Amino acid sequence: MQYHLEGYRSGDPSLEEAQSSAVSASDTVDVLIVGAGPAGLTLAAQMSAFRNIKTRIIERKPGPLEVGQADGVACRSVEMFEAFGFAEKVLKESYWVNEVAFWRPAGENGLVRVDRIQDVEDGLSEMPHVILNQARVHDFYLDVMHNSSHRMTPDYNRDLVSLTRGHGEYPLTAVLKLPGDQTETISAKYVIGCDGARSAVRRSLGIELKGEAARQLWGVMDVLTVTDFPDIRLKAAIQSADHGSILIIPREGGYMVRLYIELDELSEDERAADRNVTSEMLIEKAGQILAPYSLDVKEVAWWSAYEIGQRVCDVFDDRDGPNGKQSPRIFIAGDACHTHSPKAGQGMNVSMADAFNLGWKLAAVVQGHAGPELLSTYSDERRSKAKELIDFDKDMARLFSAKPETPEEAAQFQRYFQKHGRYTAGVETRYDPSLIIDSDANQSLAKGFPVGMRFHSAPVIRLADAKPMQLGHALKADGRWRLIAFASSDDEGLVTGQISKLCAFLQQDPTSPLCKYTPEANDIDSCFDLRAVFQQEHARMDLAQLPDLLLPRKGRYGLIDYEKAFCADASGRGDIFEIREIDRRQGALLIVRPDQYVAHVLALGDFDDIAAFFDGFLQTD
Amino acid sequence: MQYHLEGYRSGDPSLEEAQSSAVSASDTVDVLIVGAGPAGLTLAAQMSAFRNIKTRIIERKPGPLEVGQADGVACRSVEMFEAFGFAEKVLKESYWVNEVAFWRPAGENGLVRVDRIQDVEDGLSEMPHVILNQARVHDFYLDVMHNSSHRMTPDYNRDLVSLTRGHGEYPLTAVLKLPGDQTETISAKYVIGCDGARSAVRRSLGIELKGEAARQLWGVMDVLTVTDFPDIRLKAAIQSADHGSILIIPREGGYMVRLYIELDELSEDERAADRNVTSEMLIEKAGQILAPYSLDVKEVAWWSAYEIGQRVCDVFDDRDGPNGKQSPRIFIAGDACHTHSPKAGQGMNVSMADAFNLGWKLAAVVQGHAGPELLSTYSDERRSKAKELIDFDKDMARLFSAKPETPEEAAQFQRYFQKHGRYTAGVETRYDPSLIIDSDANQSLAKGFPVGMRFHSAPVIRLADAKPMQLGHALKADGRWRLIAFASSDDEGLVTGQISKLCAFLQQDPTSPLCKYTPEANDIDSCFDLRAVFQQEHARMDLAQLPDLLLPRKGRYGLIDYEKAFCADASGRGDIFEIREIDRRQGALLIVRPDQYVAHVLALGDFDDIAAFFDGFLQTD
Repeated sequence: MQYHLEGYRSGDPSLEEAQSSAVSASDTVDVLIVGAGPAGLTLAAQMSAFRNIKTRIIERKPGPLEVGQADGVACRSVEMFEAFGFAEKVLKESYWVNEVAFWRPAGENGLVRVDRIQDVEDGLSEMPHVILNQARVHDFYLDVMHNSSHRMTPDYNRDLVSLTRGHGEYPLTAVLKLPGDQTETISAKYVIGCDGARSAVRRSLGIELKGEAARQLWGVMDVLTVTDFPDIRLKAAIQSADHGSILIIPREGGYMVRLYIELDELSEDERAADRNVTSEMLIEKAGQILAPYSLDVKEVAWWSAYEIGQRVCDVFDDRDGPNGKQSPRIFIAGDACHTHSPKAGQGMNVSMADAFNLGWKLAAVVQGHAGPELLSTYSDERRSKAKELIDFDKDMARLFSAKPETPEEAAQFQRYFQKHGRYTAGVETRYDPSLIIDSDANQSLAKGFPVGMRFHSAPVIRLADAKPMQLGHALKADGRWRLIAFASSDDEGLVTGQISKLCAFLQQDPTSPLCKYTPEANDIDSCFDLRAVFQQEHARMDLAQLPDLLLPRKGRYGLIDYEKAFCADASGRGDIFEIREIDRRQGALLIVRPDQYVAHVLALGDFDDIAAFFDGFLQTD
Repeated sequence: MQYHLEGYRSGDPSLEEAQSSAVSASDTVDVLIVGAGPAGLTLAAQMSAFRNIKTRIIERKPGPLEVGQADGVACRSVEMFEAFGFAEKVLKESYWVNEVAFWRPAGENGLVRVDRIQDVEDGLSEMPHVILNQARVHDFYLDVMHNSSHRMTPDYNRDLVSLTRGHGEYPLTAVLKLPGDQTETISAKYVIGCDGARSAVRRSLGIELKGEAARQLWGVMDVLTVTDFPDIRLKAAIQSADHGSILIIPREGGYMVRLYIELDELSEDERAADRNVTSEMLIEKAGQILAPYSLDVKEVAWWSAYEIGQRVCDVFDDRDGPNGKQSPRIFIAGDACHTHSPKAGQGMNVSMADAFNLGWKLAAVVQGHAGPELLSTYSDERRSKAKELIDFDKDMARLFSAKPETPEEAAQFQRYFQKHGRYTAGVETRYDPSLIIDSDANQSLAKGFPVGMRFHSAPVIRLADAKPMQLGHALKADGRWRLIAFASSDDEGLVTGQISKLCAFLQQDPTSPLCKYTPEANDIDSCFDLRAVFQQEHARMDLAQLPDLLLPRKGRYGLIDYEKAFCADASGRGDIFEIREIDRRQGALLIVRPDQYVAHVLALGDFDDIAAFFDGFLQTD
């Protein structure tokens, strides 16, 4: 954590100094977020990082969620939490999914464990796959929002009645219903519907969730239970001979467990609610599947019954206006634009990823740093990922419900489960070339950082204080672009090396993005955050020879930021040049988006291409 | 973290359910703590863990500390913070001391780095040595206290006027002065003076701090500065040719740095205050020592001048009463009973260690689980450690102030610094044999767990959920004794092995401490927390064959606690049997105190000795 830049301040360093003007009462805002679920709160936390953007978030419910439905937190989401500054809280409270056990019928009414595998393969992420009540994730986002200079909190008890688009600086008008039939009207530049599967924002756009009707009924419950089933503290997929399947997800705290229980197929037009499922029915069914093991349920903390539905909207924004194409102003995210079954543990994760994708783009456009065309990439990128997820989810749901007739079929299910570990970890997302994903990247310079995929963290040593750390953890959710320069063999001679030349270009050349797009009054790294990674052992480097841009002077005192330069870790934790396949002779320059996706890989001297990439979508005020 | 044992509860799991009766207003308490510094808050946080003990903590100052003096947090202290549940907060905010640089004069008016070493040797602790404002450490303890069932907070603005010892159940009477000349009288069973170098509690006992008068004057300041000194983000000891020495301690947040600056020798009877030191003087002097490097101080966050004094009391309690020996009722801890120079970074750490040593003993005696003789071990153990520290500190201060005439003398200083890394890490403390440190331990069974020293954590895999973790992190600051059983080669056959026999003894034999001293109404692990570590790979173990005591049923529902059994880590992070030198054929049983010190090492079958050890100081109510 970096703090005290503008002078020493006592107290919690996460708590930023409050701005004098409160946004919460304002009826004219830059950004209005509808819905305080995982997508809405991720977006709000992201917007709260920008002092000069006025954001409000409203929620129908009367207060924060207390019992959540979702609980699976993919590795990629924990990486994102690190960027928001609360991964350590999640890691502390959560259950860690370390292994998965597979059980199937054996002998007369028996069950046998047929396999036990690692849940996340080694090296996939520096973060584990964890399970934590969605309500706690909400709490951590609420803390981030509240600690921001805006002291942002959701306005509860507000139901969106209508949303219309007109003209002018604040073209959107949202009418909200408050308790006691009061109404409130908010004018906004942008509105984002994070208001769930029955989204009022989506309805206002006339967009539909499309997909197949769901037929398979499932029950889910969080229970405190006593059982002699030995794998009750492992994620376990159990297929019984005659009673269907169950998926066990151990929960945080060491005692609670979630059970996903297969129920019947629904007939045509039948809904989950029609079956009058009760928690007693779920307990009985779970007991049958788990037999001969006992299941003595002491408390049901939460339960539900649902039919699996896989649906997605054709577009996630209002580009198709009543009079033809228009720049999008209204967006939908999360369950508002895609739904799927919960067992893959993807719902909350994909919703948060939607918002993380959208947030920095909104901030750039609201602040005038980029034109509105940047915003179209949100729907393009996330819609195709939602489609992939739904295809995956369909396969998964089918395999899960299929009664395995043979050991081969059971093994097929296991293989599928294994193969998709990467996918469910959230790290397989790869965005297509666009304005902000270069199609002409020099991938061979850094094979382990595929363009379009998230920056895959690796260990480094910070030069100035010799701290062993994860490079990815320097990439905070602050809306900045990262330029990550991996040194070439020339850079052994620091002053004459390629990194020095790159710094000279960035800092002095009028065509450099840093010179063109960084407002004069701002710190030099306020838009583009340059980090350099050297090949040498840190103790053999001379910090004094670093170019100025790697020891930038910042803030009102012009203090030096010492956290820009890193070295490969020679201690055996892994040399980043080796594990990410960086070209040691030529080095490489990575351009990484504010949401941590690799946008471009270039040679260190490709100054024209660096400039051209950013000129493609950035603008001066 | 384990929670939800007594039923699902939403919200922050660190926040315990509040007790209905507020202690804070009570004028009759079990324990009265005077002073809310590091010692007082550690003790208060420890006492807050016990629902049935009434504790108050009072403080002269009007509110929580905002700017702290101390900042060094030794590895051992971070281990202790983990036991209190907030290590991750400290790790996040703090500066990590990774390396130390040594500089000395070179050529005409020059300085040169002569060495650069690791600050903490590999394997010394799973925790780093960190630097963090004392005020933040206070904040984290205040959170622990407030989150306890007592919702404990210090009562500020209360100055101890008198403390007297009489008779009866609450023999101590403390008179406090409040603002506006109000007074308050509190009756207590025990009073602990954590009220600093000018302790009113110590004064009431007529005990003196004894030691040498200090002659060397030092200045210290926390500054935001711009410098071209390259090691400004490393801990650096700099000896100049003609201007004395400086010690640089980088501070949390990335920008601030603490400078310890050598000033003049004081003459006889002169005090630091007599010299009228100003921050400008410190800045000038620092600049002279650091020359030819620049030092442009932009802001002084805090500064002070002090003379080094090494003093310690002969005894830390009131055993020597006016009428001869008595059971101690009044204790002093931290600066109240020992003072030393700050540069070794030990003050806050030793004070907290005092309190951690005393807390569980007080709790045991107040609850009637042990007789008052247990309390005498506090002064015995901690007084000898304070004496060691002072001897160390004297050497250190002398070496630091000595002007090195030759490279050999400079090298001597470096060697001393290095050698004492273990000492300053806080992990070299070794308590002498006593009631609670067995003199007859079978050390050869577990050479890596020396009796009298803190339990040195090592990696393990938790059996039930395959979680890789540190075994030491299972040892929370909850007042419980730990029995840590390392399996023998017999235990490959779980049911017939020695661990099973040990469990049978503990659970069924009327002479076992567990049967004798655990109150009937309590959970079976409420006084003795048995953990077992097996040699096999976790995936080859059958959890169902564990003895009941390793899958204990707890709480109102009789839920199973799955966190008692572990396996050696076969993944390459280190096999605990190997790195702690456990006898693989015989196994070993460790008895570990509630403050994490190893009290005894026995063979797994030494049932009589296990019983005899606890019979030496425990009692039934």
